[in-house]
Amino acid sequence: MKIEILTTGDELMSGLTQDGNFQWAGETLTWLGFDVAYHTTVGDNKEILKSVFNTAKNRADAVIVTGGLGPTPDDLTIEAVSNFLNVGVELSEPALEMMTERFRKIGRKVSDTNMKQVYLPEGSKVLLNKWGTAPGFSYEVENTVFFFLPGVPKEFRAMMEEYVIPELKNKNPHMKKSCQRLVKTFGLPESEVAQKLYGIERAHVKLGYRAHFREIHLRVSSSGDSFAEADALMDEFLKEIHARLGKYVFTTEGEMLEEVVGNLLTLNNMTLATAESCTGGLLSHRITNVPGSSTYFLEGIISYSNEAKSQILGVPMELIESHGAVSAPVVEAMAKGVRSISDSDMGIGISGIAGPGGGTPEKPVGTVFIGLDSGTKGAISREFHFHGTREEIKLVTVLNALDMIRQSLLNNV
Amino acid sequence: MKIEILTTGDELMSGLTQDGNFQWAGETLTWLGFDVAYHTTVGDNKEILKSVFNTAKNRADAVIVTGGLGPTPDDLTIEAVSNFLNVGVELSEPALEMMTERFRKIGRKVSDTNMKQVYLPEGSKVLLNKWGTAPGFSYEVENTVFFFLPGVPKEFRAMMEEYVIPELKNKNPHMKKSCQRLVKTFGLPESEVAQKLYGIERAHVKLGYRAHFREIHLRVSSSGDSFAEADALMDEFLKEIHARLGKYVFTTEGEMLEEVVGNLLTLNNMTLATAESCTGGLLSHRITNVPGSSTYFLEGIISYSNEAKSQILGVPMELIESHGAVSAPVVEAMAKGVRSISDSDMGIGISGIAGPGGGTPEKPVGTVFIGLDSGTKGAISREFHFHGTREEIKLVTVLNALDMIRQSLLNNV
Repeated sequence: MKIEILTTGDELMSGLTQDGNFQWAGETLTWLGFDVAYHTTVGDNKEILKSVFNTAKNRADAVIVTGGLGPTPDDLTIEAVSNFLNVGVELSEPALEMMTERFRKIGRKVSDTNMKQVYLPEGSKVLLNKWGTAPGFSYEVENTVFFFLPGVPKEFRAMMEEYVIPELKNKNPHMKKSCQRLVKTFGLPESEVAQKLYGIERAHVKLGYRAHFREIHLRVSSSGDSFAEADALMDEFLKEIHARLGKYVFTTEGEMLEEVVGNLLTLNNMTLATAESCTGGLLSHRITNVPGSSTYFLEGIISYSNEAKSQILGVPMELIESHGAVSAPVVEAMAKGVRSISDSDMGIGISGIAGPGGGTPEKPVGTVFIGLDSGTKGAISREFHFHGTREEIKLVTVLNALDMIRQSLLNNV
Repeated sequence: MKIEILTTGDELMSGLTQDGNFQWAGETLTWLGFDVAYHTTVGDNKEILKSVFNTAKNRADAVIVTGGLGPTPDDLTIEAVSNFLNVGVELSEPALEMMTERFRKIGRKVSDTNMKQVYLPEGSKVLLNKWGTAPGFSYEVENTVFFFLPGVPKEFRAMMEEYVIPELKNKNPHMKKSCQRLVKTFGLPESEVAQKLYGIERAHVKLGYRAHFREIHLRVSSSGDSFAEADALMDEFLKEIHARLGKYVFTTEGEMLEEVVGNLLTLNNMTLATAESCTGGLLSHRITNVPGSSTYFLEGIISYSNEAKSQILGVPMELIESHGAVSAPVVEAMAKGVRSISDSDMGIGISGIAGPGGGTPEKPVGTVFIGLDSGTKGAISREFHFHGTREEIKLVTVLNALDMIRQSLLNNV
């Protein structure tokens, strides 16, 4: 079964938006074992849409179309589909009901512009959208099934998982059973991960690498005649990955680093407080993205100025003057200070130069110190020299801070 | 003249690599005023390549193909082109010469596998590659010109600029000149923006909508016989957008909301400090993403616990007990408190319930208060009721906080 993914929108053609939906769908479907044979992108143009629907119908068995279902004049998918199929549109009562209910909750009425979204091509099957406003729909024509989904990534993904993937699986009952896992590592470059895993390949297991900023993710897929067979293969393979990569693996379940840290803090019944300078709140933001983080995250201080470091965190001004704000003694004092004022079990202090300004020959842009204080063990710190843009330096600093907390909780440091 | 961009490679279809070449070419060509009408991606498969060359020939006037020119077995472009055109291959002497010279410099000899790269389809015109190994080529068939370029981004871009763009311009001596702008709005849903702009369309101006989370972005493109004409049309159109959307427009230059806020603070020579609860540092993170923000951003307090709100920010415990931590008096006191301890001109306080836990019947998940204190004007606050996931509630809260700062600096509140 050949699949075509058709993404639409002027903003894609003009390069203003990156086509994340195609990338996600290509990855997801390929790893499930489907044959994603064609991908087409076109702008908001009715005639062109019509012509690519036709091309797709003639070469693919399933076509997934995204975008153009919104309420504005450049949302042309429904009209183009009607033209292509030579049918009119009809009101989808369940779609209108869902939209009315959704709008009622936020105190709005369904406007005339929104009404256009619930008139779907005659003969189509509505795909209700529980994650946003625009309903989707599917249509079967000459043995090719078309799925029309909204372009908003969150809605697109949810509807792929709820409707499209199950239906594609139904149409392929004899496909091998497969098992997927997302292993994430931090602390090694891709080439070293690949070296450590050299020769690990085996039959019925696929391994794909992807650099996700400074994390290296390993997409693992195993297949067999039954789920049990695929699962057993997977377990064995993950054991071998653990044996080779050790502490660099932070999850085999696809979790974010901050979730792993949160689970470890909860498990150890410990609390955390942060004192950030160059990361400007990003560490706290990442930590507090995790639901329930208020049980272990007590407070954060973003001490951008030296005055804040001294007055709020109690870092002695002499220490800042003699070593500089970006130094091991200062981040250790920041970690101790925030632990003390918040009465937390663990404190972390970060100071560095994120750039593009502020660098000196001794401490160039990218110089970062991270300090960690967990009471009885005393304070420790590490010095880093990062490269990249301001946002990249902030992000890599936060990843290292999270990993220092993780390694400390695992007693690796 | 309709252009098709055809990117090839299994790594694109399986989502392992993001298609940066298409995004770059789409943006570059659109900006120059070309009509990028189709984009296709396919994997390394000779038959499929042949079929999409044919589809492209029938619908486009110029086709830019990237990838598949390397020396390995999965590089199939030359073979697929020969099949498609039904011609053999012939040695390109200039390409061989350049490759030999390139390899000589790094002490290597041209190997048999590399030789395959310099045998090009008969009748094609070589496009010498000064930036890498694989030569490109062009071919004209039935009034459609094909350009075949390497997939390595650096080489692709350089060869686009050296060969393809000049030739496309030659083929379009009378092309219109065009001007693009990215207008961003905040505070209105997409349907209301569309309603306010109803009927604004005019000749030679294209308007596209894009929902970027809760911001609505408007992509505007104008064209004329000269750049001056396109610019004048654009100015007039932007004036009309301003007249209709007023304070909801925060930039016509594509800036982020935090950049606009940073510019306004700098212009007014004012400083800012933040006290965040439910947003957990995201507001400070966004503000400090802007280079140079240390001149106006003094410090941030993430007071997740009531103790932090009281001890660090000086919010009276009685206030928290009588009104609750999520209330107008508390966020106003937080704003005042952080302004006072940091000695900044403006303080902002945020408290809310980001969920998924922590909601009550009186204050359900999504209830958020934002307070703003700018000294002489006194403290103000606003109450919000948001919907969405934890991360969405954090983000929409931050956007509203940034916009409150912006409106305050513009004296709109």
